[in-house]
Amino acid sequence: MSDQYEDQSLCPIVHSTGLVGDRWSILIVRELLMGQGRFQDLQAQTGATSQMLSARLKRLEADGIVERQTYSEKPLRYEYRLTAKGLHLMPVILALRTWGERWVKPEGAPAAVRMFHRVCGSELELDGNCPVCRRLAPWTEMAGRPDEAWLTERKTRAETFTENLKKAACGARESDQ
Amino acid sequence: MSDQYEDQSLCPIVHSTGLVGDRWSILIVRELLMGQGRFQDLQAQTGATSQMLSARLKRLEADGIVERQTYSEKPLRYEYRLTAKGLHLMPVILALRTWGERWVKPEGAPAAVRMFHRVCGSELELDGNCPVCRRLAPWTEMAGRPDEAWLTERKTRAETFTENLKKAACGARESDQ
Repeated sequence: MSDQYEDQSLCPIVHSTGLVGDRWSILIVRELLMGQGRFQDLQAQTGATSQMLSARLKRLEADGIVERQTYSEKPLRYEYRLTAKGLHLMPVILALRTWGERWVKPEGAPAAVRMFHRVCGSELELDGNCPVCRRLAPWTEMAGRPDEAWLTERKTRAETFTENLKKAACGARESDQ
Repeated sequence: MSDQYEDQSLCPIVHSTGLVGDRWSILIVRELLMGQGRFQDLQAQTGATSQMLSARLKRLEADGIVERQTYSEKPLRYEYRLTAKGLHLMPVILALRTWGERWVKPEGAPAAVRMFHRVCGSELELDGNCPVCRRLAPWTEMAGRPDEAWLTERKTRAETFTENLKKAACGARESDQ
């Protein structure tokens, strides 16, 4: 698709997918919404290579979706956070969640995250409807609670990633000798 | 990302973006939601090459999102339609629309599509809120009305596409001589 098409089109989908129309960007936004902002955590949880992740983060930063914040001066380390523009991608993530849970995931698998209505504390239905307030809850009134099974999956992924990093480092040292 | 990661993850975003985690698929779904189901129309409006479009449609069909229906026997011609699974991607498209209109499109550009609440006829706010019913309207209660400027953009795109096809056909005939 040419940039001209994108710049001149009135279609908001053309514009939004020009910025987050790929899987990695979506998975990065998912992680940042979960509060995972460090490079290695992002890499572990998305499964992206460091080159891929680095390129996507740079692009998301240039597009005003992500910002960097220093969390260590020596050594200099950043973590990534969503800007207001990035945070407003939450409804896109929620819509992908609803569809994925309902139409794609194997039957019987537990929901990764249960969503609750901050206003009344009830668990929301998959489409965001509150059974107590009898209305759709806006995303700003939602709070997510990850399922234990999903937390375990994430923990395992983080551990495997760290182990692999260590192995790679040992391999590099051995080949230096 | 390995298939193993995808198959085994509980995350619905991993599953949904495994099927529609690219821009072309999203733009195809947008067109099918607008009732454009013929190959050349899809090509004209998405800007995809015929190879790209063909590959994406095959994949969407294999994933149960799109189905083919014969509209001409001689010559044999199909048009594409969304299945129930595909139709339920509407909230994803709507969320990308809201974000694109609010955060990405140049200021002052008119909304491509105005959304109305079928229940009361009112125009919905950009986040889907009905100012009359004072609640978020579910997508199943929404009706879209494309803006004139966007219809003109689409018409121009269709005409340009047809002209280019004719030119290409003439070029091919000339080079045959």
